Amino acid sequence: MPLPPPPPRGASAPLGVFDSGVGGLTVLKELRRALPHESFVYLGDTARVPYGPKPPEMVRGFATEIAHALLGRGVKGIVIACNTASAAALPELADRLPVPTWGVVEPGVAAALGRAPGGRIGVLGTQGTVASRVYQDRLERAGAITWARACPLFVPIVEEGVSDTAIARLVASHYLEGRPPLDAVILGCTHYPALKGVLAEVLGEGVTLIDSAEAVAAVVARDLRRLGLLAPAGGRAGVRYLVTGDVPSFLHAAEVLGGPAGTYEQLPVTDLSLGPAERAR
Amino acid sequence: MPLPPPPPRGASAPLGVFDSGVGGLTVLKELRRALPHESFVYLGDTARVPYGPKPPEMVRGFATEIAHALLGRGVKGIVIACNTASAAALPELADRLPVPTWGVVEPGVAAALGRAPGGRIGVLGTQGTVASRVYQDRLERAGAITWARACPLFVPIVEEGVSDTAIARLVASHYLEGRPPLDAVILGCTHYPALKGVLAEVLGEGVTLIDSAEAVAAVVARDLRRLGLLAPAGGRAGVRYLVTGDVPSFLHAAEVLGGPAGTYEQLPVTDLSLGPAERAR
Repeated sequence: MPLPPPPPRGASAPLGVFDSGVGGLTVLKELRRALPHESFVYLGDTARVPYGPKPPEMVRGFATEIAHALLGRGVKGIVIACNTASAAALPELADRLPVPTWGVVEPGVAAALGRAPGGRIGVLGTQGTVASRVYQDRLERAGAITWARACPLFVPIVEEGVSDTAIARLVASHYLEGRPPLDAVILGCTHYPALKGVLAEVLGEGVTLIDSAEAVAAVVARDLRRLGLLAPAGGRAGVRYLVTGDVPSFLHAAEVLGGPAGTYEQLPVTDLSLGPAERAR
Repeated sequence: MPLPPPPPRGASAPLGVFDSGVGGLTVLKELRRALPHESFVYLGDTARVPYGPKPPEMVRGFATEIAHALLGRGVKGIVIACNTASAAALPELADRLPVPTWGVVEPGVAAALGRAPGGRIGVLGTQGTVASRVYQDRLERAGAITWARACPLFVPIVEEGVSDTAIARLVASHYLEGRPPLDAVILGCTHYPALKGVLAEVLGEGVTLIDSAEAVAAVVARDLRRLGLLAPAGGRAGVRYLVTGDVPSFLHAAEVLGGPAGTYEQLPVTDLSLGPAERAR
Protein backbone atom coordinates (compact mmCIF):
# COMPACT_ATOMS: atom_id res chain seq x y z
CA MET A 1 0.00 0.00 0.00
CA PRO A 2 1.73 3.28 -1.09
CA LEU A 3 1.75 5.89 1.64
CA PRO A 4 -0.41 8.99 1.07
CA PRO A 5 1.14 12.47 1.13
CA PRO A 6 1.87 13.96 4.58
CA PRO A 7 -1.33 15.15 6.20
CA PRO A 8 -2.01 18.70 7.29
CA ARG A 9 -2.49 17.64 10.92
CA GLY A 10 0.11 17.31 13.65
CA ALA A 11 1.42 14.28 15.49
CA SER A 12 -0.54 15.08 18.63
CA ALA A 13 -3.89 15.01 16.78
CA PRO A 14 -6.08 11.96 17.47
CA LEU A 15 -6.47 8.95 15.19
CA GLY A 16 -9.95 8.30 13.80
CA VAL A 17 -11.30 4.75 13.86
CA PHE A 18 -14.69 3.67 12.55
CA ASP A 19 -16.86 0.62 12.21
CA SER A 20 -20.49 -0.14 11.40
CA GLY A 21 -20.90 -0.91 15.09
CA VAL A 22 -18.92 -2.38 17.95
CA GLY A 23 -16.72 -4.93 16.17
CA GLY A 24 -14.06 -2.30 15.49
CA LEU A 25 -13.44 -2.10 19.23
CA THR A 26 -11.18 -5.15 18.91
CA VAL A 27 -9.13 -3.12 16.41
CA LEU A 28 -9.13 -0.12 18.75
CA LYS A 29 -7.86 -2.37 21.54
CA GLU A 30 -4.91 -3.56 19.43
CA LEU A 31 -4.21 0.00 18.25
CA ARG A 32 -4.07 1.14 21.88
CA ARG A 33 -1.72 -1.71 22.70
CA ALA A 34 0.60 -0.89 19.76
CA LEU A 35 0.30 2.89 20.18
CA PRO A 36 -0.03 3.65 23.90
CA HIS A 37 0.43 7.42 23.55
CA GLU A 38 -2.19 8.02 20.86
CA SER A 39 -5.62 9.47 21.51
CA PHE A 40 -8.56 8.21 19.43
CA VAL A 41 -11.95 9.22 18.08
CA TYR A 42 -14.01 6.04 17.50
CA LEU A 43 -17.22 6.31 15.48
CA GLY A 44 -19.65 3.37 15.70
CA ASP A 45 -22.43 3.65 13.10
CA THR A 46 -24.80 1.49 15.16
CA ALA A 47 -27.90 3.21 13.72
CA ARG A 48 -27.08 1.69 10.32
CA VAL A 49 -25.43 -1.59 11.33
CA PRO A 50 -25.02 -4.12 9.71
CA TYR A 51 -23.18 -2.96 6.58
CA GLY A 52 -22.64 -6.54 5.33
CA PRO A 53 -25.95 -7.03 3.49
CA LYS A 54 -26.07 -3.47 2.07
CA PRO A 55 -25.01 -2.60 -1.51
CA PRO A 56 -21.33 -1.50 -1.76
CA GLU A 57 -22.30 1.96 -3.11
CA MET A 58 -24.41 2.55 -0.01
CA VAL A 59 -21.57 1.44 2.29
CA ARG A 60 -19.18 3.68 0.35
CA GLY A 61 -21.55 6.61 0.94
CA PHE A 62 -21.69 5.88 4.69
CA ALA A 63 -17.89 5.59 4.89
CA THR A 64 -17.45 8.91 3.08
CA GLU A 65 -19.86 10.65 5.46
CA ILE A 66 -18.08 9.20 8.47
CA ALA A 67 -14.63 10.08 7.16
CA HIS A 68 -15.76 13.69 6.80
CA ALA A 69 -17.20 13.67 10.32
CA LEU A 70 -13.86 12.38 11.66
CA LEU A 71 -11.86 14.93 9.65
CA GLY A 72 -14.12 17.61 11.09
CA ARG A 73 -12.91 16.46 14.51
CA GLY A 74 -9.27 16.98 13.54
CA VAL A 75 -7.99 13.42 13.12
CA LYS A 76 -4.50 12.89 11.65
CA GLY A 77 -5.38 9.52 10.09
CA ILE A 78 -8.34 7.14 9.69
CA VAL A 79 -8.55 3.40 10.34
CA ILE A 80 -11.52 1.67 8.71
CA ALA A 81 -11.99 -1.00 11.38
CA CYS A 82 -14.66 -2.87 9.44
CA ASN A 83 -14.15 -5.52 6.78
CA THR A 84 -17.19 -4.56 4.72
CA ALA A 85 -16.34 -0.85 4.68
CA SER A 86 -12.65 -1.60 4.00
CA ALA A 87 -13.62 -3.69 0.99
CA ALA A 88 -16.15 -1.17 -0.34
CA ALA A 89 -14.51 2.16 0.41
CA LEU A 90 -10.77 1.95 1.12
CA PRO A 91 -9.37 2.48 -2.39
CA GLU A 92 -11.55 5.54 -2.99
CA LEU A 93 -11.08 7.05 0.47
CA ALA A 94 -7.33 6.50 0.47
CA ASP A 95 -7.17 8.44 -2.82
CA ARG A 96 -9.39 11.28 -1.74
CA LEU A 97 -8.73 11.95 1.92
CA PRO A 98 -6.04 14.42 3.02
CA VAL A 99 -4.86 12.05 5.81
CA PRO A 100 -3.46 8.49 5.74
CA THR A 101 -6.20 5.87 5.69
CA TRP A 102 -5.98 2.16 6.48
CA GLY A 103 -8.36 -0.78 6.14
CA VAL A 104 -8.30 -4.19 7.84
CA VAL A 105 -8.17 -6.38 4.74
CA GLU A 106 -4.68 -5.73 3.32
CA PRO A 107 -2.84 -6.11 6.66
CA GLY A 108 -4.70 -9.37 7.32
CA VAL A 109 -3.81 -10.72 3.87
CA ALA A 110 -0.15 -9.70 4.22
CA ALA A 111 0.10 -11.30 7.68
CA ALA A 112 -1.45 -14.55 6.42
CA LEU A 113 0.83 -14.76 3.39
CA GLY A 114 3.83 -14.12 5.63
CA ARG A 115 2.93 -16.85 8.07
CA ALA A 116 1.45 -19.66 5.97
CA PRO A 117 4.40 -21.27 4.19
CA GLY A 118 2.24 -23.95 2.56
CA GLY A 119 -0.12 -21.28 1.26
CA ARG A 120 -3.34 -23.04 2.26
CA ILE A 121 -5.33 -20.23 3.88
CA GLY A 122 -8.82 -20.31 5.37
CA VAL A 123 -11.02 -17.21 5.64
CA LEU A 124 -13.81 -16.86 8.17
CA GLY A 125 -16.09 -13.83 7.91
CA THR A 126 -19.62 -12.53 7.60
CA GLN A 127 -21.75 -13.48 4.60
CA GLY A 128 -20.97 -10.11 2.99
CA THR A 129 -17.20 -10.38 3.43
CA VAL A 130 -17.00 -13.98 2.21
CA ALA A 131 -19.30 -13.35 -0.76
CA SER A 132 -17.30 -10.24 -1.76
CA ARG A 133 -14.20 -12.49 -2.12
CA VAL A 134 -12.13 -9.53 -0.92
CA TYR A 135 -9.76 -11.85 0.97
CA GLN A 136 -9.83 -14.82 -1.39
CA ASP A 137 -9.02 -12.80 -4.53
CA ARG A 138 -6.01 -11.09 -2.94
CA LEU A 139 -4.71 -14.36 -1.47
CA GLU A 140 -5.17 -16.28 -4.71
CA ARG A 141 -3.44 -13.57 -6.74
CA ALA A 142 -0.47 -14.12 -4.41
CA GLY A 143 -0.52 -17.86 -5.14
CA ALA A 144 -2.37 -19.13 -2.06
CA ILE A 145 -5.04 -21.83 -2.08
CA THR A 146 -8.10 -20.60 -0.19
CA TRP A 147 -11.10 -22.02 1.62
CA ALA A 148 -13.75 -19.63 2.97
CA ARG A 149 -16.74 -19.99 5.22
CA ALA A 150 -19.40 -17.43 6.23
CA CYS A 151 -20.11 -17.70 9.97
CA PRO A 152 -23.21 -15.57 10.67
CA LEU A 153 -23.64 -16.99 14.20
CA PHE A 154 -20.24 -15.79 15.40
CA VAL A 155 -21.14 -12.09 15.77
CA PRO A 156 -24.21 -12.66 17.97
CA ILE A 157 -22.28 -15.29 19.96
CA VAL A 158 -19.60 -12.71 20.75
CA GLU A 159 -22.13 -9.97 21.48
CA GLU A 160 -24.05 -12.34 23.77
CA GLY A 161 -20.90 -12.95 25.79
CA VAL A 162 -20.93 -16.74 25.22
CA SER A 163 -17.64 -16.84 23.26
CA ASP A 164 -16.03 -19.20 25.72
CA THR A 165 -18.84 -21.74 26.15
CA ALA A 166 -20.02 -25.06 24.74
CA ILE A 167 -22.30 -23.08 22.41
CA ALA A 168 -19.32 -21.38 20.76
CA ARG A 169 -17.42 -24.67 20.49
CA LEU A 170 -20.37 -26.46 18.87
CA VAL A 171 -20.95 -23.62 16.40
CA ALA A 172 -17.22 -23.39 15.55
CA SER A 173 -17.14 -27.15 14.89
CA HIS A 174 -20.23 -26.76 12.68
CA TYR A 175 -18.60 -24.04 10.55
CA LEU A 176 -15.21 -25.74 10.32
CA GLU A 177 -16.60 -29.16 9.43
CA GLY A 178 -15.40 -30.42 6.08
CA ARG A 179 -12.50 -27.97 5.79
CA PRO A 180 -9.42 -29.02 3.83
CA PRO A 181 -5.96 -29.07 5.50
CA LEU A 182 -5.04 -25.43 6.27
CA ASP A 183 -1.83 -23.63 7.28
CA ALA A 184 -3.50 -20.44 8.49
CA VAL A 185 -6.99 -19.07 9.11
CA ILE A 186 -7.80 -15.35 8.80
CA LEU A 187 -10.32 -13.96 11.29
CA GLY A 188 -12.00 -11.85 8.61
CA CYS A 189 -14.42 -10.08 10.92
CA THR A 190 -13.55 -7.68 13.70
CA HIS A 191 -15.71 -9.58 16.21
CA TYR A 192 -13.86 -12.86 15.81
CA PRO A 193 -10.76 -12.20 17.96
CA ALA A 194 -13.05 -12.90 20.94
CA LEU A 195 -13.39 -16.47 19.59
CA LYS A 196 -9.65 -17.09 19.23
CA GLY A 197 -9.50 -19.59 22.10
CA VAL A 198 -12.36 -21.72 20.83
CA LEU A 199 -11.18 -21.56 17.20
CA ALA A 200 -7.62 -22.56 18.13
CA GLU A 201 -9.05 -25.54 20.03
CA VAL A 202 -11.25 -26.68 17.14
CA LEU A 203 -8.60 -26.06 14.44
CA GLY A 204 -5.93 -27.88 16.43
CA GLU A 205 -2.16 -27.40 16.37
CA GLY A 206 -0.29 -26.37 13.25
CA VAL A 207 -2.88 -23.83 12.07
CA THR A 208 -1.91 -20.18 12.60
CA LEU A 209 -4.77 -17.82 13.47
CA ILE A 210 -4.41 -14.43 11.78
CA ASP A 211 -6.02 -11.61 13.72
CA SER A 212 -6.63 -8.67 11.35
CA ALA A 213 -6.90 -6.35 14.35
CA GLU A 214 -3.31 -7.12 15.39
CA ALA A 215 -2.15 -6.94 11.77
CA VAL A 216 -3.66 -3.51 11.09
CA ALA A 217 -2.36 -2.12 14.40
CA ALA A 218 1.17 -3.15 13.44
CA VAL A 219 0.86 -1.51 10.00
CA VAL A 220 -0.59 1.72 11.41
CA ALA A 221 2.19 1.94 14.02
CA ARG A 222 4.85 1.38 11.33
CA ASP A 223 3.34 3.98 8.97
CA LEU A 224 2.87 6.64 11.66
CA ARG A 225 6.51 6.18 12.65
CA ARG A 226 7.64 6.53 9.02
CA LEU A 227 5.50 9.64 8.58
CA GLY A 228 6.78 11.23 11.81
CA LEU A 229 3.22 11.24 13.11
CA LEU A 230 3.57 9.21 16.31
CA ALA A 231 2.01 11.04 19.25
CA PRO A 232 4.60 12.32 21.73
CA ALA A 233 4.73 10.38 25.01
CA GLY A 234 2.85 11.94 27.88
CA GLY A 235 -0.12 13.30 25.91
CA ARG A 236 -3.65 12.47 26.98
CA ALA A 237 -4.21 9.06 25.42
CA GLY A 238 -8.01 8.97 25.72
CA VAL A 239 -10.84 7.70 23.55
CA ARG A 240 -13.80 9.77 22.43
CA TYR A 241 -16.69 7.59 21.22
CA LEU A 242 -19.30 8.84 18.77
CA VAL A 243 -22.28 6.54 18.34
CA THR A 244 -25.04 7.05 15.77
CA GLY A 245 -27.41 4.67 17.57
CA ASP A 246 -28.29 4.03 21.17
CA VAL A 247 -25.43 4.78 23.64
CA PRO A 248 -26.41 2.28 26.42
CA SER A 249 -26.50 -0.67 23.96
CA PHE A 250 -23.10 0.42 22.67
CA LEU A 251 -21.73 0.56 26.21
CA HIS A 252 -22.97 -2.96 26.91
CA ALA A 253 -21.31 -4.33 23.78
CA ALA A 254 -18.14 -2.32 24.45
CA GLU A 255 -17.87 -4.07 27.79
CA VAL A 256 -18.18 -7.53 26.20
CA LEU A 257 -15.57 -6.68 23.55
CA GLY A 258 -13.19 -5.07 26.02
CA GLY A 259 -13.29 -1.61 24.44
CA PRO A 260 -11.25 0.94 26.43
CA ALA A 261 -13.02 3.49 28.63
CA GLY A 262 -13.68 6.94 27.23
CA THR A 263 -16.30 9.64 26.73
CA TYR A 264 -19.49 8.88 24.80
CA GLU A 265 -21.64 11.07 22.56
CA GLN A 266 -24.72 10.32 20.51
CA LEU A 267 -24.24 11.61 16.96
CA PRO A 268 -27.49 11.55 14.94
CA VAL A 269 -27.14 10.02 11.46
CA THR A 270 -28.70 13.19 10.04
CA ASP A 271 -25.63 15.12 11.25
CA LEU A 272 -23.50 12.93 9.00
CA SER A 273 -25.26 13.85 5.75
CA LEU A 274 -23.05 15.55 3.21
CA GLY A 275 -23.96 18.28 0.76
CA PRO A 276 -23.30 17.62 -2.95
CA ALA A 277 -20.04 19.61 -2.77
CA GLU A 278 -18.62 17.53 0.09
CA ARG A 279 -19.79 14.32 -1.55
CA ALA A 280 -17.86 15.18 -4.72
CA ARG A 281 -14.63 16.01 -2.88
CA MET B 1 -59.08 -3.64 19.00
CA PRO B 2 -61.96 -1.57 17.48
CA LEU B 3 -62.38 -2.16 13.77
CA PRO B 4 -61.52 0.77 11.49
CA PRO B 5 -64.11 2.15 9.05
CA PRO B 6 -64.72 0.16 5.84
CA PRO B 7 -61.85 0.71 3.42
CA PRO B 8 -62.23 2.17 -0.05
CA ARG B 9 -60.85 -1.00 -1.63
CA GLY B 10 -62.70 -4.12 -2.73
CA ALA B 11 -62.59 -7.66 -1.41
CA SER B 12 -60.50 -8.88 -4.33
CA ALA B 13 -57.69 -6.39 -3.61
CA PRO B 14 -54.51 -7.89 -2.10
CA LEU B 15 -53.53 -7.77 1.56
CA GLY B 16 -50.33 -5.91 2.39
CA VAL B 17 -47.85 -7.53 4.80
CA PHE B 18 -44.56 -6.01 5.92
CA ASP B 19 -41.58 -6.75 8.09
CA SER B 20 -38.12 -5.35 8.62
CA GLY B 21 -36.85 -8.40 6.77
CA VAL B 22 -37.71 -12.04 6.32
CA GLY B 23 -39.21 -12.93 9.73
CA GLY B 24 -42.67 -11.83 8.61
CA LEU B 25 -42.67 -14.72 6.14
CA THR B 26 -43.80 -17.00 9.00
CA VAL B 27 -46.80 -14.66 9.40
CA LEU B 28 -47.41 -14.70 5.64
CA LYS B 29 -47.35 -18.51 5.73
CA GLU B 30 -50.04 -18.63 8.44
CA LEU B 31 -52.09 -15.95 6.63
CA ARG B 32 -51.98 -18.06 3.47
CA ARG B 33 -53.08 -21.10 5.43
CA ALA B 34 -56.00 -19.23 7.07
CA LEU B 35 -56.92 -17.27 3.93
CA PRO B 36 -56.25 -19.51 0.92
CA HIS B 37 -58.01 -17.25 -1.60
CA GLU B 38 -56.23 -14.01 -0.74
CA SER B 39 -53.43 -12.49 -2.77
CA PHE B 40 -50.63 -10.66 -0.95
CA VAL B 41 -48.05 -7.91 -1.37
CA TYR B 42 -45.17 -8.59 1.05
CA LEU B 43 -42.63 -5.84 1.66
CA GLY B 44 -39.35 -6.85 3.34
CA ASP B 45 -37.31 -3.80 4.37
CA THR B 46 -34.05 -5.74 4.29
CA ALA B 47 -32.00 -2.63 3.44
CA ARG B 48 -32.82 -1.24 6.90
CA VAL B 49 -33.05 -4.43 8.96
CA PRO B 50 -32.83 -4.79 11.97
CA TYR B 51 -35.47 -2.45 13.40
CA GLY B 52 -34.96 -3.73 16.98
CA PRO B 53 -32.03 -1.51 18.01
CA LYS B 54 -33.37 1.62 16.25
CA PRO B 55 -35.24 4.43 18.06
CA PRO B 56 -39.06 3.99 17.98
CA GLU B 57 -39.57 7.30 16.09
CA MET B 58 -37.29 6.04 13.34
CA VAL B 59 -39.16 2.72 13.13
CA ARG B 60 -42.45 4.63 13.07
CA GLY B 61 -41.15 6.67 10.14
CA PHE B 62 -40.15 3.50 8.24
CA ALA B 63 -43.54 1.90 8.93
CA THR B 64 -45.38 4.99 7.68
CA GLU B 65 -43.32 5.04 4.47
CA ILE B 66 -43.98 1.35 3.90
CA ALA B 67 -47.70 1.65 4.61
CA HIS B 68 -47.92 4.37 1.96
CA ALA B 69 -45.98 2.23 -0.52
CA LEU B 70 -48.41 -0.66 0.09
CA LEU B 71 -51.48 1.61 -0.21
CA GLY B 72 -50.04 2.84 -3.49
CA ARG B 73 -50.19 -0.79 -4.65
CA GLY B 74 -53.91 -1.01 -3.84
CA VAL B 75 -53.96 -3.16 -0.71
CA LYS B 76 -57.25 -3.55 1.19
CA GLY B 77 -55.57 -4.01 4.57
CA ILE B 78 -52.10 -4.07 6.15
CA VAL B 79 -50.54 -6.62 8.50
CA ILE B 80 -47.47 -5.37 10.39
CA ALA B 81 -45.69 -8.74 10.59
CA CYS B 82 -42.91 -7.44 12.84
CA ASN B 83 -42.93 -7.14 16.61
CA THR B 84 -40.78 -4.01 16.76
CA ALA B 85 -42.82 -2.15 14.14
CA SER B 86 -46.11 -3.34 15.70
CA ALA B 87 -45.01 -1.94 19.06
CA ALA B 88 -43.74 1.34 17.62
CA ALA B 89 -46.25 2.12 14.91
CA LEU B 90 -49.53 0.20 15.19
CA PRO B 91 -51.60 2.64 17.26
CA GLU B 92 -50.73 5.58 15.02
CA LEU B 93 -51.07 3.69 11.73
CA ALA B 94 -54.36 2.08 12.74
CA ASP B 95 -55.73 5.59 13.43
CA ARG B 96 -54.45 7.18 10.25
CA LEU B 97 -54.66 4.60 7.50
CA PRO B 98 -57.80 4.27 5.37
CA VAL B 99 -57.63 0.45 5.52
CA PRO B 100 -57.72 -2.01 8.45
CA THR B 101 -54.33 -2.53 10.02
CA TRP B 102 -53.14 -5.32 12.31
CA GLY B 103 -50.02 -5.94 14.38
CA VAL B 104 -48.64 -9.17 15.83
CA VAL B 105 -48.54 -8.16 19.50
CA GLU B 106 -52.24 -7.91 20.48
CA PRO B 107 -53.25 -11.25 18.90
CA GLY B 108 -50.31 -12.98 20.64
CA VAL B 109 -51.25 -11.47 24.00
CA ALA B 110 -54.92 -12.41 23.58
CA ALA B 111 -54.04 -15.97 22.61
CA ALA B 112 -51.71 -16.37 25.59
CA LEU B 113 -54.27 -15.01 28.07
CA GLY B 114 -56.89 -17.34 26.61
CA ARG B 115 -54.70 -20.42 26.93
CA ALA B 116 -52.73 -19.94 30.16
CA PRO B 117 -55.21 -20.55 32.98
CA GLY B 118 -52.58 -20.10 35.70
CA GLY B 119 -51.52 -16.82 34.16
CA ARG B 120 -47.77 -17.44 34.33
CA ILE B 121 -46.60 -16.37 30.88
CA GLY B 122 -43.10 -16.34 29.41
CA VAL B 123 -42.09 -14.02 26.59
CA LEU B 124 -39.18 -14.75 24.25
CA GLY B 125 -38.15 -12.05 21.80
CA THR B 126 -35.38 -9.86 20.44
CA GLN B 127 -33.60 -7.43 22.75
CA GLY B 128 -35.71 -4.58 21.39
CA THR B 129 -39.04 -6.34 21.91
CA VAL B 130 -38.21 -7.56 25.41
CA ALA B 131 -36.80 -4.18 26.50
CA SER B 132 -39.86 -2.36 25.14
CA ARG B 133 -42.04 -4.42 27.54
CA VAL B 134 -44.75 -4.36 24.88
CA TYR B 135 -45.85 -7.91 25.76
CA GLN B 136 -45.15 -7.82 29.51
CA ASP B 137 -47.12 -4.59 30.13
CA ARG B 138 -50.22 -5.84 28.31
CA LEU B 139 -50.07 -9.26 30.01
CA GLU B 140 -49.54 -7.77 33.47
CA ARG B 141 -52.41 -5.31 33.02
CA ALA B 142 -54.58 -8.37 32.39
CA GLY B 143 -53.38 -9.95 35.65
CA ALA B 144 -50.74 -12.34 34.35
CA ILE B 145 -47.34 -12.94 35.95
CA THR B 146 -44.61 -12.59 33.33
CA TRP B 147 -41.05 -13.72 32.76
CA ALA B 148 -39.18 -12.46 29.69
CA ARG B 149 -35.90 -13.32 28.02
CA ALA B 150 -34.15 -11.70 25.06
CA CYS B 151 -32.77 -14.41 22.73
CA PRO B 152 -30.51 -12.65 20.19
CA LEU B 153 -29.06 -15.93 18.91
CA PHE B 154 -32.41 -17.33 17.78
CA VAL B 155 -32.79 -15.18 14.64
CA PRO B 156 -29.39 -16.10 13.16
CA ILE B 157 -29.94 -19.74 14.14
CA VAL B 158 -33.17 -19.78 12.14
CA GLU B 159 -31.63 -17.90 9.20
CA GLU B 160 -28.68 -20.32 9.19
CA GLY B 161 -31.06 -23.25 8.87
CA VAL B 162 -29.82 -24.97 12.07
CA SER B 163 -33.16 -24.70 13.93
CA ASP B 164 -33.43 -28.42 14.37
CA THR B 165 -29.89 -29.22 15.53
CA ALA B 166 -27.90 -29.66 18.73
CA ILE B 167 -26.85 -25.99 18.39
CA ALA B 168 -30.47 -24.82 18.65
CA ARG B 169 -31.15 -27.15 21.59
CA LEU B 170 -28.08 -25.95 23.50
CA VAL B 171 -28.92 -22.28 22.88
CA ALA B 172 -32.58 -22.79 23.84
CA SER B 173 -31.49 -24.47 27.11
CA HIS B 174 -29.13 -21.54 27.74
CA TYR B 175 -31.91 -18.96 27.33
CA LEU B 176 -34.52 -20.92 29.30
CA GLU B 177 -32.22 -21.73 32.20
CA GLY B 178 -33.46 -20.36 35.50
CA ARG B 179 -37.02 -19.74 34.29
CA PRO B 180 -39.84 -19.95 36.84
CA PRO B 181 -42.73 -22.42 36.32
CA LEU B 182 -44.71 -21.23 33.28
CA ASP B 183 -48.11 -22.06 31.78
CA ALA B 184 -47.45 -20.57 28.35
CA VAL B 185 -44.60 -19.05 26.37
CA ILE B 186 -45.16 -16.43 23.67
CA LEU B 187 -42.89 -16.63 20.62
CA GLY B 188 -42.50 -12.86 20.51
CA CYS B 189 -40.47 -12.72 17.31
CA THR B 190 -41.64 -13.74 13.87
CA HIS B 191 -38.58 -15.96 13.33
CA TYR B 192 -39.24 -18.16 16.34
CA PRO B 193 -41.98 -20.45 14.96
CA ALA B 194 -39.13 -22.28 13.20
CA LEU B 195 -37.83 -23.20 16.68
CA LYS B 196 -41.13 -24.59 17.98
CA GLY B 197 -39.94 -28.20 18.01
CA VAL B 198 -36.78 -27.48 19.98
CA LEU B 199 -38.53 -25.07 22.39
CA ALA B 200 -41.32 -27.56 23.10
CA GLU B 201 -38.68 -30.18 23.87
CA VAL B 202 -36.72 -27.92 26.24
CA LEU B 203 -39.84 -26.46 27.94
CA GLY B 204 -41.37 -29.90 28.46
CA GLU B 205 -45.01 -30.88 28.72
CA GLY B 206 -47.62 -28.61 30.25
CA VAL B 207 -46.28 -25.39 28.69
CA THR B 208 -48.34 -24.03 25.78
CA LEU B 209 -46.36 -22.36 23.00
CA ILE B 210 -48.11 -19.30 21.60
CA ASP B 211 -47.27 -18.59 17.98
CA SER B 212 -48.08 -14.92 17.21
CA ALA B 213 -48.12 -15.73 13.49
CA GLU B 214 -51.01 -18.19 13.97
CA ALA B 215 -52.74 -15.79 16.33
CA VAL B 216 -52.62 -12.80 13.96
CA ALA B 217 -53.75 -14.93 10.99
CA ALA B 218 -56.84 -16.01 12.95
CA VAL B 219 -57.67 -12.39 13.87
CA VAL B 220 -57.16 -11.10 10.32
CA ALA B 221 -59.39 -13.88 8.91
CA ARG B 222 -62.11 -13.09 11.46
CA ASP B 223 -61.99 -9.32 10.80
CA LEU B 224 -61.99 -9.67 6.99
CA ARG B 225 -65.04 -11.91 7.27
CA ARG B 226 -66.83 -9.38 9.49
CA LEU B 227 -65.98 -6.54 7.13
CA GLY B 228 -67.14 -8.47 4.05
CA LEU B 229 -63.61 -8.23 2.67
CA LEU B 230 -62.72 -11.90 2.18
CA ALA B 231 -61.39 -12.53 -1.31
CA PRO B 232 -63.80 -14.54 -3.46
CA ALA B 233 -62.74 -18.14 -4.11
CA GLY B 234 -61.04 -18.74 -7.43
CA GLY B 235 -59.06 -15.48 -7.64
CA ARG B 236 -55.32 -15.55 -8.24
CA ALA B 237 -53.93 -16.12 -4.77
CA GLY B 238 -50.34 -15.11 -5.48
CA VAL B 239 -47.66 -13.25 -3.58
CA ARG B 240 -45.79 -10.22 -4.87
CA TYR B 241 -42.60 -9.57 -2.92
CA LEU B 242 -41.01 -6.13 -2.68
CA VAL B 243 -37.54 -6.10 -1.15
CA THR B 244 -35.59 -2.94 -0.30
CA GLY B 245 -32.29 -4.84 -0.04
CA ASP B 246 -30.67 -7.59 -2.03
CA VAL B 247 -33.15 -9.98 -3.73
CA PRO B 248 -30.94 -13.15 -3.80
CA SER B 249 -30.27 -12.95 -0.02
CA PHE B 250 -34.01 -12.54 0.54
CA LEU B 251 -34.74 -15.57 -1.64
CA HIS B 252 -32.29 -17.67 0.34
CA ALA B 253 -33.88 -16.68 3.66
CA ALA B 254 -37.37 -17.13 2.22
CA GLU B 255 -36.48 -20.71 1.40
CA VAL B 256 -35.30 -21.41 4.97
CA LEU B 257 -38.44 -19.83 6.47
CA GLY B 258 -40.78 -21.58 4.04
CA GLY B 259 -42.11 -18.40 2.43
CA PRO B 260 -44.51 -19.11 -0.44
CA ALA B 261 -43.37 -18.69 -4.02
CA GLY B 262 -44.16 -15.46 -5.83
CA THR B 263 -42.73 -12.65 -7.92
CA TYR B 264 -39.84 -10.56 -6.61
CA GLU B 265 -38.96 -6.90 -7.14
CA GLN B 266 -36.20 -4.73 -5.75
CA LEU B 267 -37.66 -1.50 -4.35
CA PRO B 268 -34.97 1.08 -3.50
CA VAL B 269 -35.38 2.68 -0.07
CA THR B 270 -35.24 6.10 -1.76
CA ASP B 271 -38.53 5.24 -3.51
CA LEU B 272 -40.13 4.93 -0.09
CA SER B 273 -39.34 8.49 1.02
CA LEU B 274 -42.40 10.59 1.76
CA GLY B 275 -42.87 14.29 1.15
CA PRO B 276 -43.88 16.46 4.15
CA ALA B 277 -47.55 16.35 3.08
CA GLU B 278 -47.68 12.54 3.02
CA ARG B 279 -45.78 12.32 6.28
CA ALA B 280 -48.38 14.52 7.99
CA ARG B 281 -51.36 12.55 6.67
